[in-house]
Amino acid sequence: MTEPKTSLSCPFPISDFPVITMAHGGGGKLTSLLIDSIFRPLFASPALDAQHDSARLQVGNSRLAFTTDSYVVSPLFFPGGDIGTLSVTGTVNDLAMSGARPLYLSCGFILEEGFKTDLLVQVVQAMKRAAAISGVQIVTGDTKVVERGKGDGLFINTAGIGVIEHDLKIEPASIRPGDAILLSGDVGRHGVAILSAREGLQFETAVQSDCAPLYSIVAALLKEGIELHCLRDLTRGGLATALVELALSSRLSFTFKENQVPVGDEVRGACEILGLDPLYCANEGRMIAFVPEAQAERALAIVQSFSDGGQATLLGQVSSHESRNGRVVMSLRFGTERYIDRLSGEQLPRIC
Amino acid sequence: MTEPKTSLSCPFPISDFPVITMAHGGGGKLTSLLIDSIFRPLFASPALDAQHDSARLQVGNSRLAFTTDSYVVSPLFFPGGDIGTLSVTGTVNDLAMSGARPLYLSCGFILEEGFKTDLLVQVVQAMKRAAAISGVQIVTGDTKVVERGKGDGLFINTAGIGVIEHDLKIEPASIRPGDAILLSGDVGRHGVAILSAREGLQFETAVQSDCAPLYSIVAALLKEGIELHCLRDLTRGGLATALVELALSSRLSFTFKENQVPVGDEVRGACEILGLDPLYCANEGRMIAFVPEAQAERALAIVQSFSDGGQATLLGQVSSHESRNGRVVMSLRFGTERYIDRLSGEQLPRIC
Repeated sequence: MTEPKTSLSCPFPISDFPVITMAHGGGGKLTSLLIDSIFRPLFASPALDAQHDSARLQVGNSRLAFTTDSYVVSPLFFPGGDIGTLSVTGTVNDLAMSGARPLYLSCGFILEEGFKTDLLVQVVQAMKRAAAISGVQIVTGDTKVVERGKGDGLFINTAGIGVIEHDLKIEPASIRPGDAILLSGDVGRHGVAILSAREGLQFETAVQSDCAPLYSIVAALLKEGIELHCLRDLTRGGLATALVELALSSRLSFTFKENQVPVGDEVRGACEILGLDPLYCANEGRMIAFVPEAQAERALAIVQSFSDGGQATLLGQVSSHESRNGRVVMSLRFGTERYIDRLSGEQLPRIC
Repeated sequence: MTEPKTSLSCPFPISDFPVITMAHGGGGKLTSLLIDSIFRPLFASPALDAQHDSARLQVGNSRLAFTTDSYVVSPLFFPGGDIGTLSVTGTVNDLAMSGARPLYLSCGFILEEGFKTDLLVQVVQAMKRAAAISGVQIVTGDTKVVERGKGDGLFINTAGIGVIEHDLKIEPASIRPGDAILLSGDVGRHGVAILSAREGLQFETAVQSDCAPLYSIVAALLKEGIELHCLRDLTRGGLATALVELALSSRLSFTFKENQVPVGDEVRGACEILGLDPLYCANEGRMIAFVPEAQAERALAIVQSFSDGGQATLLGQVSSHESRNGRVVMSLRFGTERYIDRLSGEQLPRIC
């Protein structure tokens, strides 16, 4: 197991990757390499070192969360969502993963010359709807236009500010041996929906993206006194990559059972046809939560009480085994075990 | 004069512009049309209605400023700056225009497959230097990669949070008849530097971009008790567009003398050769400040005390004339007057 080299400064090991490849944006190993070898050492700050979805900041008497994501999803419209919905939901979900109540969003549009104005209006209307659902206000923005052939229709960046109204430190370093790992629903729908739309594939039942805001579930868990240790939404790289990243960050070992991972029949069928692994398939409305064992059943009941949480499950456990720390072990249906790794290349580019 | 239709909801007048053109990103009339017909009505919020560079937000006991900009400048490196420096400086300057002390930045990278890693490292190093100079911390980030031909090397978005530590309302609505208009230095250098780099032009003396952070000047003005009514940095569209936008927002009339606008000899010469008007030429380290007449000379002396403010000047005055409100009048060298308008098309695309 290789630890991220957080103390690295200069020279950078860029001889290993002289040019950027699609896999550097895939959310897997090469994305981590890029972050750990260039961004983290150069921008060294305690907030970045927390290796979390959003930075926690003290401003006046308020604890704030601050995060950003750029959205380059292709196609712009897909079953169950679109780039506008995604650009609001994805960023408020990153805030929610700190247990922060989303307050404000910025949005930056990079438009390609020739982009159809009515598509832009549809996207902006979708952002407005998603913002209303998430209870967040879009308060500042920017628009740039690039020449035809220098962009791809529309890219959106959003940055979000949320307020943290609890005293927990919801972050990888708070994960403890004995914690239960709760998964908030079925996995793989977003990735399959995107690939189906991209390739023009028709399945018997169209797989809809799971794209949805997560804060209301997080707020309910907090309100009911669940001591959340860590939260992580499952985006690029899917469930497997999220688990491995957190095992590495927390330096603990996670185990889970393959048959505890809810995967819809349509998703499973589509993954078989498309050659995808649902464990690595992207999601945009799913998270894992690390909670004390004693509160696990109660936390599960809370998540399951949400219309989107019916398939939530207690996925696995955290433990500390010197030989296995930083690793994720999956028990297979046939009683054997295997280590889970991050995505090494890219499963599916531009899913968000 | 047509007022921005802030109450417009739906349908949008998009039949007038069925597709996005480069001029929609030029910072002039068409950018305003896009914002006023699509973004402002759909994202209706008091913060956006203030028509200012950054949103002012109350969070706990703190008054915050929040802003975002995407940077698509071409080429990525130019005399006096680069996209990394620009992406930090431009956003902290937007915060400074609310009189906010810049605290935190997010950064989102959209990389094109095949982009050279050593260029990325140079850009990130430049961002680090610019952040240190501006006293701002880069605390959260995101990286996406798009396929070759779907981007243009590198786009960067930054969003910034600043804290407002004074009781002034620095915004267009605070501009008053009688205010003096202070210009912080010579104009046109950034636009000329970009175009020279882009076209491979060589002038006798290379024109360097004026790209520089403005907060230290703003902080000095505030510290010395200057009652700042409004600040605006001069970016896309240059001095002329900034003046017209503020005349429209404040519904007042501005007058200034052409010969009070400092333009360097190299910039003037280059503009003549390139067919540019220095009044519309982009800047990245210049601002106009609206201050009470009685404090104007003192404010000027403060700005001139900065190494970058030697050419600062009292440019003109604000007045209220029913027939001229919303308009900007320039007195020419030969005693005649003319109205100044916003850029109607685009002078120079992708300068920031």
